[in-house]
Amino acid sequence: MTRPVIAIIGSGAIGSYYGGRLAQHGQDVHFLVRSDYSVVSKQGWQIRSCAGDFSVSPDRAGIHDDPRKMPKADLVIVALKATANDQYEALIGPLLKDDTAILTLQNGLGCERRLGEFFGAERVLGGLAFICVTRLAAGLIEHSDYGLIKLGEFVEPSDSKRARNLAELFRGCGIPCQAIESLKSARWEKLTWNVPFSGLGAVLDMDTRRLLAEDAGVKLIAQIIDEVLAIARADGVDLPREVGQEKIRQTQTMGAYRSSMQIDRQLGRPMEVEAILGEPLRVAERLGVAAPRISMLYRMARLVNLGNP
Amino acid sequence: MTRPVIAIIGSGAIGSYYGGRLAQHGQDVHFLVRSDYSVVSKQGWQIRSCAGDFSVSPDRAGIHDDPRKMPKADLVIVALKATANDQYEALIGPLLKDDTAILTLQNGLGCERRLGEFFGAERVLGGLAFICVTRLAAGLIEHSDYGLIKLGEFVEPSDSKRARNLAELFRGCGIPCQAIESLKSARWEKLTWNVPFSGLGAVLDMDTRRLLAEDAGVKLIAQIIDEVLAIARADGVDLPREVGQEKIRQTQTMGAYRSSMQIDRQLGRPMEVEAILGEPLRVAERLGVAAPRISMLYRMARLVNLGNP
Repeated sequence: MTRPVIAIIGSGAIGSYYGGRLAQHGQDVHFLVRSDYSVVSKQGWQIRSCAGDFSVSPDRAGIHDDPRKMPKADLVIVALKATANDQYEALIGPLLKDDTAILTLQNGLGCERRLGEFFGAERVLGGLAFICVTRLAAGLIEHSDYGLIKLGEFVEPSDSKRARNLAELFRGCGIPCQAIESLKSARWEKLTWNVPFSGLGAVLDMDTRRLLAEDAGVKLIAQIIDEVLAIARADGVDLPREVGQEKIRQTQTMGAYRSSMQIDRQLGRPMEVEAILGEPLRVAERLGVAAPRISMLYRMARLVNLGNP
Repeated sequence: MTRPVIAIIGSGAIGSYYGGRLAQHGQDVHFLVRSDYSVVSKQGWQIRSCAGDFSVSPDRAGIHDDPRKMPKADLVIVALKATANDQYEALIGPLLKDDTAILTLQNGLGCERRLGEFFGAERVLGGLAFICVTRLAAGLIEHSDYGLIKLGEFVEPSDSKRARNLAELFRGCGIPCQAIESLKSARWEKLTWNVPFSGLGAVLDMDTRRLLAEDAGVKLIAQIIDEVLAIARADGVDLPREVGQEKIRQTQTMGAYRSSMQIDRQLGRPMEVEAILGEPLRVAERLGVAAPRISMLYRMARLVNLGNP
């Protein structure tokens, strides 16, 4: 098998880390780098990783500032912030051949569907990245914990041969990876954490310890998780009711964790309100499921987001 | 008629201003002053008022630091913050004769009921103070706008002879005042503003202009007002549905107004969460009315309040 051309669209922390791992292991990786281009095109990346530090020098990878200058790809990995999804067509369109696969590692709900609408659902895979990784500066990435990707086809069943081959390719590059049976189920399962903890964390500017410090917070989080479970059920994903108590228990062991949405709020950056709150809510509305607390959280997050540029 | 002895319990902005007006007009007023006693017992109050500046010198009013040193009163005016309601018995008990009336000017719901439980419902009147007044420093009060009190008996009909006499006494002292037919109705009507605007304002740390700056905020506020109206209706108070749109319109003309609960939050002071959110919610629960948004707001406010000492 010839070496696939892999394009990384969005070179923030997630894109740089995973793309960097692929390049480190000899894959033919081409990054679209926009804000950090002047630094990264000269120096590449330094990656401080709990799994071993490494660097990606510009002669080991393609570093581009325009998708029209990039080679056509066999695999496009989308690691944009979901707030940039209105740029899908301009950023991804130029990279596609007839059989290019598109894997989005983005947060929340709706990214696969939207990619499918633009480029055809059969191209699209989605992945959930369970990783703590931060861009410290242009060209400097810190990977502090975890790293697993669960991925699968948007069109179910998700664990196709293509998905399994991709998981194997990732594992060969030092990235723990599983192909999963149902991407949709995994997305909803992750939302049972993200909707309450990212939503409330961002709206109240509180970390997980503060949110769980009083009974009022624990009860509210449980109620919000119940709403997520009800929407998921109406959407065909039957998660066990105990997921709520489990997520709360797990989170209690995490210490004072700030969600990426809370960090965005603190830094005055746009928050992923639509992907994490708006999309699940629109599914609820479409399916006629009552979700008053998620609706309220969504509206509050919109108000908070309005203060961010 | 002999001059009644009037005790003011709680000498913050509201108590100092209204008590000061009564003293200015020759009433026999005794203040319970705690945190500001050392200053006020020597200098009295300076009151900067849009209706005319005035001062209250210590030889024109009784200034006390202990209710047990105060004379028995014909009228006790309660102007405590509702967060201090666990002190009712200790602060008011010593002032009572058989026929002492108690008028609470406190915010929110439940103060009259609680006073009635301690001291007998027939003693109790409630008043809503529509006023912008601030304590700038010990002994220095600023009255910047409005001033109307609407008052009435806790036991309805609210516009008793006693209530009307009291309103007349207030008017005679330069305080616009109306006796109203139903105190309960007035309390619920005020809550249609306080629950959404004080609640969201405090939880999100946003003034009224910011809350109304986007459609998301206007819609959420309308939904919360609808919940207040539903609880009020179940509690026997049938306010017109248009109240919601009216409150929103009025508030849009107010500019960037910070509720007292938002100011408490900003200053790290305890917020009146129970009087403004907790009590209406408990009425909803008692009467079986769904109020998911108020419940959520209450829990969020509890979390925010936890950060305040």
